[in-house]
Amino acid sequence: MAPVAAGGGDREIGVALLGLGNVGAGVVKLLEDNAAAIRARLGARLVVRAIAVRAPDKKKRLVEVDRALLTTDIEATLSRPDVDIVCELIGGDAEAKVAVESAIAHGKHVVTANKLLLARHGTAVFAAAEDKGVDVYYEAAVCGGVPVIRVLREGLASDRVENIHGIVNGTSNFILTEMRDKGTPFAEVLAEAQRLGYAESDPTLDVSGGDAAHKLAVLCMLCFGAMLDSDAIHKEGIDTLDPRDFAYAEKFGYVVKPLVIGRDHGRAVEARVHPTMVPARWLLADVDGAKNALYVTSYALGGSMYYGAGAGMMPTAMAVVSDLIEVARNLMAKAAGARPTRRHRALAPKPLLPMTEIRSRYYLRFSVADRPGVLGQITTILGNHEVSIAQVIQDSERDPGHDSGATVFVVTHEAREGDVQAALAKIAALPIAAAPPRLIRIAE
Amino acid sequence: MAPVAAGGGDREIGVALLGLGNVGAGVVKLLEDNAAAIRARLGARLVVRAIAVRAPDKKKRLVEVDRALLTTDIEATLSRPDVDIVCELIGGDAEAKVAVESAIAHGKHVVTANKLLLARHGTAVFAAAEDKGVDVYYEAAVCGGVPVIRVLREGLASDRVENIHGIVNGTSNFILTEMRDKGTPFAEVLAEAQRLGYAESDPTLDVSGGDAAHKLAVLCMLCFGAMLDSDAIHKEGIDTLDPRDFAYAEKFGYVVKPLVIGRDHGRAVEARVHPTMVPARWLLADVDGAKNALYVTSYALGGSMYYGAGAGMMPTAMAVVSDLIEVARNLMAKAAGARPTRRHRALAPKPLLPMTEIRSRYYLRFSVADRPGVLGQITTILGNHEVSIAQVIQDSERDPGHDSGATVFVVTHEAREGDVQAALAKIAALPIAAAPPRLIRIAE
Repeated sequence: MAPVAAGGGDREIGVALLGLGNVGAGVVKLLEDNAAAIRARLGARLVVRAIAVRAPDKKKRLVEVDRALLTTDIEATLSRPDVDIVCELIGGDAEAKVAVESAIAHGKHVVTANKLLLARHGTAVFAAAEDKGVDVYYEAAVCGGVPVIRVLREGLASDRVENIHGIVNGTSNFILTEMRDKGTPFAEVLAEAQRLGYAESDPTLDVSGGDAAHKLAVLCMLCFGAMLDSDAIHKEGIDTLDPRDFAYAEKFGYVVKPLVIGRDHGRAVEARVHPTMVPARWLLADVDGAKNALYVTSYALGGSMYYGAGAGMMPTAMAVVSDLIEVARNLMAKAAGARPTRRHRALAPKPLLPMTEIRSRYYLRFSVADRPGVLGQITTILGNHEVSIAQVIQDSERDPGHDSGATVFVVTHEAREGDVQAALAKIAALPIAAAPPRLIRIAE
Repeated sequence: MAPVAAGGGDREIGVALLGLGNVGAGVVKLLEDNAAAIRARLGARLVVRAIAVRAPDKKKRLVEVDRALLTTDIEATLSRPDVDIVCELIGGDAEAKVAVESAIAHGKHVVTANKLLLARHGTAVFAAAEDKGVDVYYEAAVCGGVPVIRVLREGLASDRVENIHGIVNGTSNFILTEMRDKGTPFAEVLAEAQRLGYAESDPTLDVSGGDAAHKLAVLCMLCFGAMLDSDAIHKEGIDTLDPRDFAYAEKFGYVVKPLVIGRDHGRAVEARVHPTMVPARWLLADVDGAKNALYVTSYALGGSMYYGAGAGMMPTAMAVVSDLIEVARNLMAKAAGARPTRRHRALAPKPLLPMTEIRSRYYLRFSVADRPGVLGQITTILGNHEVSIAQVIQDSERDPGHDSGATVFVVTHEAREGDVQAALAKIAALPIAAAPPRLIRIAE
């Protein structure tokens, strides 16, 4: 059996894959399925020379490959002279970093789908690549197959991004869409998502906002030239949302979405991950199911949005193979590692804006005793903290889990988060408070 | 006054502008406004060396420029040794072609926003550029600032596009959005759009679908490797739409949008421009006002969408300057003209699929005599032509412009256009027909 190859062009460009899971199998399949088109566009063939895997004897794989290509020896793979590009699909942090840095040290160009690696060690990886004169491409790291990295790095190269709002975790978006459409609680929808393969058996990284925070760090790097401490990004999961919040979001004209938000403040960057109410008229409000989308607001272009499959074997593989083609195009022009396509030269560590300093609109839900004067107490405290109210609904239906009581729903005008939190602490300490207040930020 | 320059990097890359209208002024402004960021990303300065204009003494310009840069001599501008990149912003067909071909002959790289030039003469321009080893970039030619050209050429380089649905003419989309929201007839909305500057004083190219057809030809070139006869693309304008069609579109669950549709059939390409009903649940249905969007369906990625400002001084200038940066990046790596980023090598003339051969769903409106048996006659003729009906509404309100009569609204299942047209011809010839039937295609 011949090595996996794309097309029959004269020149061959050697590729090594590290990892043959879901995405790796997709890469092999796409290189085969679209071989002729890739060769026609590139004028060369992309040939897989080696695939490093943990267990070469594993029987069940998602794609058929020549067993002679499989190896457990990553270092030997990275030093092969017939390999031009190393495709890192190991995932995770430690092992991937060692492999990518070794690939760079061997003078190999790198394509990776690893957002965690870039969020934690982007500075070191890009510096090493620049010193060695090799390319590092990472389109698949954010929004899967939707080419948002290229859009930001090249399409908007002349522009200045002011802020971004993104749905970058498909699992969370699928779960929130189902919760809204079916009125089902989180735990039930999660179980269903796991059954359908939309959620991992350990869904923590997805539903806690951790995965989204890593992607947000990569986006802020590209948009604002800022290296953030990605582990310090404020994140709230979707697991504490209550079906009532979906119903009242709709009443107030909003849809709850798992958003990442980034905004440049010059000396600091605002970066946060939390379920957010977005106006129902926004395009982002219509991005449903497991889909991803990034809405970018920039100086010259204004608002623009990029939408599609943020995960899955073939969409992610598509981004990886497009990166391989990009490096191959550079190689064909003897320009690999030489094009200043990266904004990494201009990267600088930047502090995160403290959450108390952000400004937002807020949806607040108060479970209180059903007693005269309650609404007055709440609104007075909010007012004393400079939190001005846009809409309020008091619902005297029995608050689930409490024998008697009322629920007060408040939508505020824009306010400082520190002020809102201080007001909520005071309200929570009132004798009328039956449960801690719930806060959901509104993007508008 | 110093020449217009972006940033203070060491290396200077010389740019000549042909034309200083709306977009040209935006280019000058953006190079100034974002000078520092561009220099940081590129490691070089983009310097405007000359601007060719028709009337250098013109008093009123959208941007202030050094008068010494202005010239009427295009040929002298193109042969300047200190010009690396020529930016063609003349527009139109004949003069732009002469200028671009001369720039290429002088070994200059070209950035253009001219869809008409590429739709009519793309093959010749790209062949000349390839022979001479220079770059031709044209991001601003389609969807203004939304980087759809880059997305298709690079982001989806590994994928195979199956079909595209796009809103690529902002004027038409603005007019249809207003007609729907306010129930106002075409002529009134057009007058308002002209007053607001959303429509030209001669709006023919926009509202007739001509502008959209040129853009569709460029998209089909990129998506399907097909050079089409852009003047032969089927187009229908938005000027014949009736407010009733908007109301019934909504009843049937659709929104009327000015769509371009392209689909690869292997030996032929389906390409058409007409007002189209799209399902209200589609993201494209929510693209309102003067905005543009391209929805792409491809083999590996599935559905993806790209949305934003398709016209306007700064959005279009943003695309042009991002192209300048792209060429400059190639120049910095000594790779300009050498990267096989273009799919133009694989371009081939391809026939258009005849309109009679396309398959679609249809909305049909019949103005008929209000008489028993009318519905039966219509549905029988449709059935005899293999046109199967999904929904029908008979409205006996007085048909405007006729003394008495009824209107029959039909939504069909997918059918062959030739069969539908044959059925309509028969129905139009019936004694009960009070006016020619109206047909609007449905994308679904």
